Amino acid sequence: MAQAAPARGFPRTEYEARAERARGLMTAHELDGLLVTSEQHVRYFTGFDSQFWASPTRPWFVIVAREGSLIAVIPEIGGPVMAKTWVDDIRTWPAPVPEDDGVTLLADALSSLPRRFGRIGAEMGPEMVLRMPAADFLRIGEVIAPLAFADGTPVLRAMRSVKSPAEIDKIRHVCRFTSEAFLALPAKLHIGMTEWQACRDMRIEVLRRGADSSPYMMGVAGPGGYDNIIMGPTQKIIEAGDILIIDTGTTFDGYYCDFDRNFAFGAPDDAAKRAHEVVWNATKAGIDAARPGATTTDLWRAMAAVLEEAGSLGNNVGRMGHGLGMQLTEWPSNRPGDDTKLLPGMVLTIEPGMEFAPGRMMVHEENIAITPDGCELLTLRAAPDMPVVE
Amino acid sequence: MAQAAPARGFPRTEYEARAERARGLMTAHELDGLLVTSEQHVRYFTGFDSQFWASPTRPWFVIVAREGSLIAVIPEIGGPVMAKTWVDDIRTWPAPVPEDDGVTLLADALSSLPRRFGRIGAEMGPEMVLRMPAADFLRIGEVIAPLAFADGTPVLRAMRSVKSPAEIDKIRHVCRFTSEAFLALPAKLHIGMTEWQACRDMRIEVLRRGADSSPYMMGVAGPGGYDNIIMGPTQKIIEAGDILIIDTGTTFDGYYCDFDRNFAFGAPDDAAKRAHEVVWNATKAGIDAARPGATTTDLWRAMAAVLEEAGSLGNNVGRMGHGLGMQLTEWPSNRPGDDTKLLPGMVLTIEPGMEFAPGRMMVHEENIAITPDGCELLTLRAAPDMPVVE
Repeated sequence: MAQAAPARGFPRTEYEARAERARGLMTAHELDGLLVTSEQHVRYFTGFDSQFWASPTRPWFVIVAREGSLIAVIPEIGGPVMAKTWVDDIRTWPAPVPEDDGVTLLADALSSLPRRFGRIGAEMGPEMVLRMPAADFLRIGEVIAPLAFADGTPVLRAMRSVKSPAEIDKIRHVCRFTSEAFLALPAKLHIGMTEWQACRDMRIEVLRRGADSSPYMMGVAGPGGYDNIIMGPTQKIIEAGDILIIDTGTTFDGYYCDFDRNFAFGAPDDAAKRAHEVVWNATKAGIDAARPGATTTDLWRAMAAVLEEAGSLGNNVGRMGHGLGMQLTEWPSNRPGDDTKLLPGMVLTIEPGMEFAPGRMMVHEENIAITPDGCELLTLRAAPDMPVVE
Repeated sequence: MAQAAPARGFPRTEYEARAERARGLMTAHELDGLLVTSEQHVRYFTGFDSQFWASPTRPWFVIVAREGSLIAVIPEIGGPVMAKTWVDDIRTWPAPVPEDDGVTLLADALSSLPRRFGRIGAEMGPEMVLRMPAADFLRIGEVIAPLAFADGTPVLRAMRSVKSPAEIDKIRHVCRFTSEAFLALPAKLHIGMTEWQACRDMRIEVLRRGADSSPYMMGVAGPGGYDNIIMGPTQKIIEAGDILIIDTGTTFDGYYCDFDRNFAFGAPDDAAKRAHEVVWNATKAGIDAARPGATTTDLWRAMAAVLEEAGSLGNNVGRMGHGLGMQLTEWPSNRPGDDTKLLPGMVLTIEPGMEFAPGRMMVHEENIAITPDGCELLTLRAAPDMPVVE
């Protein structure tokens, strides 16, 4: 509230810089163009911003050519809105037309690109989804041959994992007001409410503080600790002795925060109290280790050392934090073997978790941005002791 | 509020009936199994319910075998939650492991299915998205040959487009409380607020009445009518003379409503007033035409006749309503050439819209369920005159 919201959208120069960077990476990866179909990539390159992606009916295509300007091949319903972006070459069809939903238009556009390498990068790799009928993708591949689809993931990853200052401003903003909402939340909570009600109250709290939406608002409670971090909220009534975790992916202008807070309902028992201190200290170790040149595996090791020393029984999450930006989770992962070198501009979650007794988990998470000489904490740091709800 | 919420989830018998129906359709379409990867299909067959789909990092797979029980091939993090569903055969791996994110496990499971037709249905057709790396899908296709992937869309469409009474109960519930929220909304609105604030207030209103979330809350205002229905809400200030449309896809227990309401800020001019009457009447014509045996094209014709008679300049939406259920929009579409025969249990939106003057649109939408002898209106019918906000 004290803090002013950053301007919405980006200046045209930001999109020009993205396209230029993509062209350089395309040359390095021997691609004549990049075909993107998913909400985040269409928005990343064009600025086209719509909730209409919630409807799976119509495919949307944007081509970033290695030589030449962007081409949007989109349903007619999107024409007037795309015309407000910096994209000039907009080709539409009256979707939905399942017989030929943009297939011919798209194949023609791809076939006409200046050709040097004979390859078009597409969203084919890990953490990517081709948001179009797979049968149409295969059909287009046949039509455009000998031009061939290749995996565009390395280009998209390299670009999106390093954020611009304007992107980080948006993430900092949503981290800040969501932190404030978490601080205000205990006053709204009480023993005897449901997990669902606690999450609903948090949803309202972030909306009041400027959130566009909360695509992720997970909440789960259990006696002295929870047994999973992906299922709630349910209609379970939270009782004295329960620990509640709320983990939220809340957005501002298309950028996410992703962090959690734990709440003790009634005074926590010693094991829960200690477990929270352990994950809090592991989070500190992760944050302290985050600087350019360190790797995601280093972050994992720093956190794991604290958890192991405290007698963690392990966890089933597979990693302890990840990239963050236009999606709730992005590449890379803080895990053994990931070995991604941290660069200034990367935004990460630091998320240690452990099963500290059979069926009792404790997880904690903060968000950071890598700076030239370390990192900036984007969230307001949780207190080492859980807030107690009566 | 007066109305009690239906029970969450479904009894085991509902999932057994779904699997049984799928098996019959698989035989008819010559498939040995169905591979599903997307949130709605995994939930449809297993009951696995999680917001964790917001993270694109890990793929999830469920196989519905033509002979044999369901097989879940999923990340370890989901194991304990999947174990609470009716699925017994759960195979996990410690995802994320980009080198082999379930590929080997899934290929083994597919290869071991009882084989008669040599084909596995996958989400490859219109309105479907394969939620897994396309490169992995192609790789698995090579590993399991001569077993081949085929388009499973006809099976999935046939199943999901006809809802069970328990599914319709959930949609009726969300339609009802969202209608009530729309009725309460004008008292919260005022001239001089932004589109964004109006949508935020509607978000809070539906949360208070029992919504789980509002993945779609579009709002756009313009003088005497809006110029699109996919872009808002923006920070635009709503002025006297503006018409605001709010169109929401709000959910309860994984089922959507999808309808809109128009609001006049200050007394509407005659053209806007008349346009609203026209789309209201077109909606009536659509509802009146909806009965088993009629087609989606009949619905389109009934609505189009009213709009054309009133001098519509057309619209760029490409259809006038669509299926509705676990997704904001589902097959079929009310459009010329769709020709889907309506069956009892189908849930549809009736959504006529027109450009009634250059740059001025008016769109209206209600939700219905097809019954044995007509249809049931699931939303509380809008008034023919727009509510006026001062």
